[in-house]
Amino acid sequence: MSAPRTPSAEREPRGARRKRETRDRLLAAAYRLIAERGVDAVAINEITEAADVGFGSFYNHFPSKEAIYDEVFRQVFEEFGDALDRLTSTVEDPAEVIAVCVRHTILRARDEPRWGRFFLRESLTPRGMTGGLATRLQRDILNGVAKKRFAVGDPLMAMIMAGGTVVSSVAAQSALQLSPNGLGKGLGVDAKNLAERAAATVLHGLGIAGAEASRIARRRLPPVETPPSILSRESSS
Amino acid sequence: MSAPRTPSAEREPRGARRKRETRDRLLAAAYRLIAERGVDAVAINEITEAADVGFGSFYNHFPSKEAIYDEVFRQVFEEFGDALDRLTSTVEDPAEVIAVCVRHTILRARDEPRWGRFFLRESLTPRGMTGGLATRLQRDILNGVAKKRFAVGDPLMAMIMAGGTVVSSVAAQSALQLSPNGLGKGLGVDAKNLAERAAATVLHGLGIAGAEASRIARRRLPPVETPPSILSRESSS
Repeated sequence: MSAPRTPSAEREPRGARRKRETRDRLLAAAYRLIAERGVDAVAINEITEAADVGFGSFYNHFPSKEAIYDEVFRQVFEEFGDALDRLTSTVEDPAEVIAVCVRHTILRARDEPRWGRFFLRESLTPRGMTGGLATRLQRDILNGVAKKRFAVGDPLMAMIMAGGTVVSSVAAQSALQLSPNGLGKGLGVDAKNLAERAAATVLHGLGIAGAEASRIARRRLPPVETPPSILSRESSS
Repeated sequence: MSAPRTPSAEREPRGARRKRETRDRLLAAAYRLIAERGVDAVAINEITEAADVGFGSFYNHFPSKEAIYDEVFRQVFEEFGDALDRLTSTVEDPAEVIAVCVRHTILRARDEPRWGRFFLRESLTPRGMTGGLATRLQRDILNGVAKKRFAVGDPLMAMIMAGGTVVSSVAAQSALQLSPNGLGKGLGVDAKNLAERAAATVLHGLGIAGAEASRIARRRLPPVETPPSILSRESSS
């Protein structure tokens, strides 16, 4: 058990603070570049240039591109997932747990477009599908099945349907932000309240009747408290 | 109305044939690179190098990267969509139309991994969501709603659910091909017949009862005939 890290200048030696700041700059730059282009299109020298750090210094902080990517992935998904876990820890109904997590994920992607782009790029990769938010979704679906709250004949497909609906909602939301009249044209409906509607659709797919699914999906949504992170700032470009 | 293009050496002047062959090499190289890295990570000089074509020659064939990307996108999605349209033109039941298209899409991604990677990269972009296979899916869902075959309260979300389930199934299939034990662990089911199961899940989400959805999704699948295309070859690396 280590003492909590303190950012106070009095207690943290100057060298350690500078090292941490450089590491944070590298992480923020990697996050930004990966969200824009995908991890395969980002080289270490581009990360160091964007972070205004010498190329060689990179290796004082991370042994490889894979390592910095691991840490970005962890901060982007695991910390958000942990925050959702805290938020839903007292929620009894497995259906409401799913609804809260689906809504917060789609709303975060709306309010933090960079997070949304990273989510779109990474959530359907093998890593995204076996870690981060996917394992939590799987756990929450299996929990609802065990409690006989969900009627699911094919758990793997239930998971694929639920995750796919969330990812596709984020993509639709993003496409609509870019071109409000492109998508949904001809579908006879507007695209308001996408997060609630996605939650209702997921619950319906898990075997909850339509009216009840809609009601649960529209309940008051408690705010999620994510820890402060260098990656949560959208401002730096 | 122009005469159909003939690849016969007797009738096609040598210069025209060589020009066409160069254009095809550029298209195949662009397809390969975009499938691997995403369009944002591919530069024109990388396409010409991979195609073994001089950089300047690119512009004899395409005015811009956007133009070659348009043509790749068209060949990858529109020609497949047209082939599905021909295949389902005599199918009466809107549910069976959806099942056939969902299954063929997932099976093609399985059998042509490069096509699958391109599909994963491009189908959730604004362009992917407003063109190609998405417009056909929307048409087929709205057709089933009009014929009262589907019970859909929220057509936009039905479209997002159906498309998301297909994309997510392709991603799961690809993750399972890479690591057979990673995904599905703990879900208590194997991942066989993913295409049929995805089709059943989509139909269920469109309001068809589970048993009937499964039956329709398991019907004999007529083969789809895609036109020969330079992009359909997986061999070149």
